[in-house]
Amino acid sequence: MLLHQLMENLGTASFAISGALAALNKRLDVFGVLVLTFATAVGGGTVRDIMIGNTPVAWMKDQQAITVVFVSYLITLFFRKYLQFFPRTLAIFDAIGLGFATVVGLQRGLEAGLSPSVCVALGMVTGCFGGVLRDVLLNEIPLVFRKDIYASASLLGGALYFVFASWEMAAPWAATLSVMVVVGVRLAAMQWKWDLPSPK
Amino acid sequence: MLLHQLMENLGTASFAISGALAALNKRLDVFGVLVLTFATAVGGGTVRDIMIGNTPVAWMKDQQAITVVFVSYLITLFFRKYLQFFPRTLAIFDAIGLGFATVVGLQRGLEAGLSPSVCVALGMVTGCFGGVLRDVLLNEIPLVFRKDIYASASLLGGALYFVFASWEMAAPWAATLSVMVVVGVRLAAMQWKWDLPSPK
Amino acid sequence: MLLHQLMENLGTASFAISGALAALNKRLDVFGVLVLTFATAVGGGTVRDIMIGNTPVAWMKDQQAITVVFVSYLITLFFRKYLQFFPRTLAIFDAIGLGFATVVGLQRGLEAGLSPSVCVALGMVTGCFGGVLRDVLLNEIPLVFRKDIYASASLLGGALYFVFASWEMAAPWAATLSVMVVVGVRLAAMQWKWDLPSPK
Repeated sequence: MLLHQLMENLGTASFAISGALAALNKRLDVFGVLVLTFATAVGGGTVRDIMIGNTPVAWMKDQQAITVVFVSYLITLFFRKYLQFFPRTLAIFDAIGLGFATVVGLQRGLEAGLSPSVCVALGMVTGCFGGVLRDVLLNEIPLVFRKDIYASASLLGGALYFVFASWEMAAPWAATLSVMVVVGVRLAAMQWKWDLPSPK
Repeated sequence: MLLHQLMENLGTASFAISGALAALNKRLDVFGVLVLTFATAVGGGTVRDIMIGNTPVAWMKDQQAITVVFVSYLITLFFRKYLQFFPRTLAIFDAIGLGFATVVGLQRGLEAGLSPSVCVALGMVTGCFGGVLRDVLLNEIPLVFRKDIYASASLLGGALYFVFASWEMAAPWAATLSVMVVVGVRLAAMQWKWDLPSPK
Repeated sequence: MLLHQLMENLGTASFAISGALAALNKRLDVFGVLVLTFATAVGGGTVRDIMIGNTPVAWMKDQQAITVVFVSYLITLFFRKYLQFFPRTLAIFDAIGLGFATVVGLQRGLEAGLSPSVCVALGMVTGCFGGVLRDVLLNEIPLVFRKDIYASASLLGGALYFVFASWEMAAPWAATLSVMVVVGVRLAAMQWKWDLPSPK
């Protein structure tokens, strides 16, 4: 339960920072940045909870999430100069958010008694939707559709969770490993420019 | 119940194929095509179920829908060369999807005890939202807003369902006729370029 | 209860007119204008109800809302020539809609037992989402993100509601004052071009 909470907060913070950085790059005002930070951070989980019927959605019942988003917003705002020394910062936080959100989404699906393939899809939706919302609101083609391994990293990590579980690995270990797979595959794909084939 | 299931699957498959074809035209990679196929196929029904409060939403409780989407995806991928000989293929599948989704959405509204006018609106949302999502994600102006008979075909078919029902027509017949009206009006509008007036 | 209903209907009508005017400016056909009117008018409340789990969503259980939208649509269609003499008409109706929707959203949150800060956020979502939907569907950058006081007016009015309540002001008075704050701040910001700072 504590690990679950920690993972959810880390995922929220990573997405929040990625949303704030993207909004800062687009020169929104301080309040626009806050709205976009919030939408990116809680977008995926909100859609997940709505589709499961787990309402009021998570961030409404949980002051912690709002606090995490707000603190992440302030940190990004004050330390953006340092963050800009690392040109891939946005992509790295986005990858970490994707990893945590995938596994948290998948576990919420399990709690709701859904089948493994649906849980993997739900993890992908949780992982991808915040970023899709961020990109659509900033009037860009969603990152998830540019030729790149993104949603497929989430899908792979989600599927491996069930492989790990079938080996009777304890849930916290399976979860941690799955997060690492998602983040690792996503970052490796960026580093070495892995592509999926595009049918001609 | 069987007819209901059949109609829902035919609508899902038609929308899935229309989503896959649109994504192939935009040269997304194989995984991007899969995501778009899925979003187009289940988008309308997902929004419908969420608004009624029928959660977890249909495709989560129903392995069949996921199978239909995946098979439609594979078929489109492998037979795209043949499908391309028919330049209007995308529009035809979209029209068929619109017809089935309209009537299935409307019937779900009836099951939820909603009033006829709300059921007609719900049928329209079910029919239109998958396509809107497809177009927004591909960064195009939704087909439904281009000057053309589209949502209005859904509305007409939905309204006629209640006319047919008031004639004491059996539900399966009213449903079949309504689907035919939607598909027929939509295809005729495309063929003969019917337009609604635009206020100046 | 009566005041609540009145406020909800006034907000719905204001947003409906703003949606219809925006669609007319983009030269959509009569049916496209209707769809956009509807989406703008009920979009925010729909997202609010879905996130709280208050389903079927308000407009489905309430013939009144559909009637208000339809009458607003007809009024805008027939009197658009007169409305065009007032170049800021769209923005003024949008501001009024924002005010009412903020307070109605906030009160629905209170009824659902949510905390004050979540209620303020919910008021903002209710107030902003219809307009975001209008702008996204018309392929424009949401008004809420252009450099301008918009969502922040909603947030201020929402926060003041709880200040007024803490002074033991009766709910109808607190609500009326909050609506006036939102509308006033929004209109003043437009008039004197108030801006929030944008971090460099």
